[in-house]
Amino acid sequence: MGNRSTTPRRLHMPIVTVQQGPRDVELKRDLVARITDAFVDALNVPAESVQVWIQEVPTDSWAIGGVLTADRPKK
Amino acid sequence: MGNRSTTPRRLHMPIVTVQQGPRDVELKRDLVARITDAFVDALNVPAESVQVWIQEVPTDSWAIGGVLTADRPKK
Amino acid sequence: MGNRSTTPRRLHMPIVTVQQGPRDVELKRDLVARITDAFVDALNVPAESVQVWIQEVPTDSWAIGGVLTADRPKK
Amino acid sequence: MGNRSTTPRRLHMPIVTVQQGPRDVELKRDLVARITDAFVDALNVPAESVQVWIQEVPTDSWAIGGVLTADRPKK
Amino acid sequence: MGNRSTTPRRLHMPIVTVQQGPRDVELKRDLVARITDAFVDALNVPAESVQVWIQEVPTDSWAIGGVLTADRPKK
Amino acid sequence: MGNRSTTPRRLHMPIVTVQQGPRDVELKRDLVARITDAFVDALNVPAESVQVWIQEVPTDSWAIGGVLTADRPKK
Repeated sequence: MGNRSTTPRRLHMPIVTVQQGPRDVELKRDLVARITDAFVDALNVPAESVQVWIQEVPTDSWAIGGVLTADRPKK
Repeated sequence: MGNRSTTPRRLHMPIVTVQQGPRDVELKRDLVARITDAFVDALNVPAESVQVWIQEVPTDSWAIGGVLTADRPKK
Repeated sequence: MGNRSTTPRRLHMPIVTVQQGPRDVELKRDLVARITDAFVDALNVPAESVQVWIQEVPTDSWAIGGVLTADRPKK
Repeated sequence: MGNRSTTPRRLHMPIVTVQQGPRDVELKRDLVARITDAFVDALNVPAESVQVWIQEVPTDSWAIGGVLTADRPKK
Repeated sequence: MGNRSTTPRRLHMPIVTVQQGPRDVELKRDLVARITDAFVDALNVPAESVQVWIQEVPTDSWAIGGVLTADRPKK
Repeated sequence: MGNRSTTPRRLHMPIVTVQQGPRDVELKRDLVARITDAFVDALNVPAESVQVWIQEVPTDSWAIGGVLTADRPKK
């Protein structure tokens, strides 16, 4: 697939910010590798140009449907 | 790989925000599919729980090394 | 409800960033007023201390389930 | 009020990110409920489509007027 | 001033995101240079490690005190 | 330098968010003062209108080149 962006290719330095609940380091290690591969494969940029920042938000600071995740029944 | 997070699995709804220069829609279509797969494969969450938001920033609003990308020599 | 934060009250200046699709200005006018009221009512801060920033993301830059919103069937 | 957005209504899934100092969980519980109501009332979207993420920033990492909040006189 | 962070120095790659109203390119050119200098001078990192991303938000998408900036009297 | 923005000057209230590894408070104190000066000098806005928020991300939640910073050799 060609790279049709008008930005010079060497200036592609995507910044990825992930908001999610806390995860174990093994999972994060795997996740950031796979996200970076997604950019390399889709955009044809070097892996070193991709930065991934994970913002871990505790369950008492994150809500869906107006209810804190910490307050949701665990089923 | 097990899912060792203490967050109940059904509450994993990661939000991904990408900051990058403007790209063609075909590239973005491919990119968001691959990023979503990265979460499905690494965290074992359903694809529908993953949201990807791309913030396209024009080259005159984004700098590396103190120089706007728009001002960099195109080489 | 008391305000139990340890931050001095006059220093509460919450920044709210909303990521969503484009909306008409009337809807945004109503939305930012209501969001600000939410902070005034819940946290007992002055309205003038609350800033709301809406990042409008076009449907070809935002995906759920790995599919760009622009590509989803409109039903 | 009509919903004049061109985005299909079922695809409205606003993401709200709040940057503020640390707050007690009771305050956050109330806040996220009220913010979600703001979207339901202004945009006519289902509550379950709204996500709120609170980024709690300690007073030594947040500044107004060039002075860390932690360094401001408590009055 | 020494650099007391426990992060290896060569890995300091701060990402700066600015949310503000639209500005002319000359002002942004000057601004990103000065922000980058701030990091070089305060943290002793190379300029090339600093990225600045400006998110320009139009006045009808940004509110203080519950009022869109576009609706404020221009005085 | 003139201020050519079409936004009324008193409404310039830039929000700066920094993503970086953890730093000592002395470094952050110096950094936020210098960043704020950058805005005062480049945009001619009052210092009190500038807010800086530092998101400190631990080395096991931040990656370059697909590798967590925590996993990089310290050289």
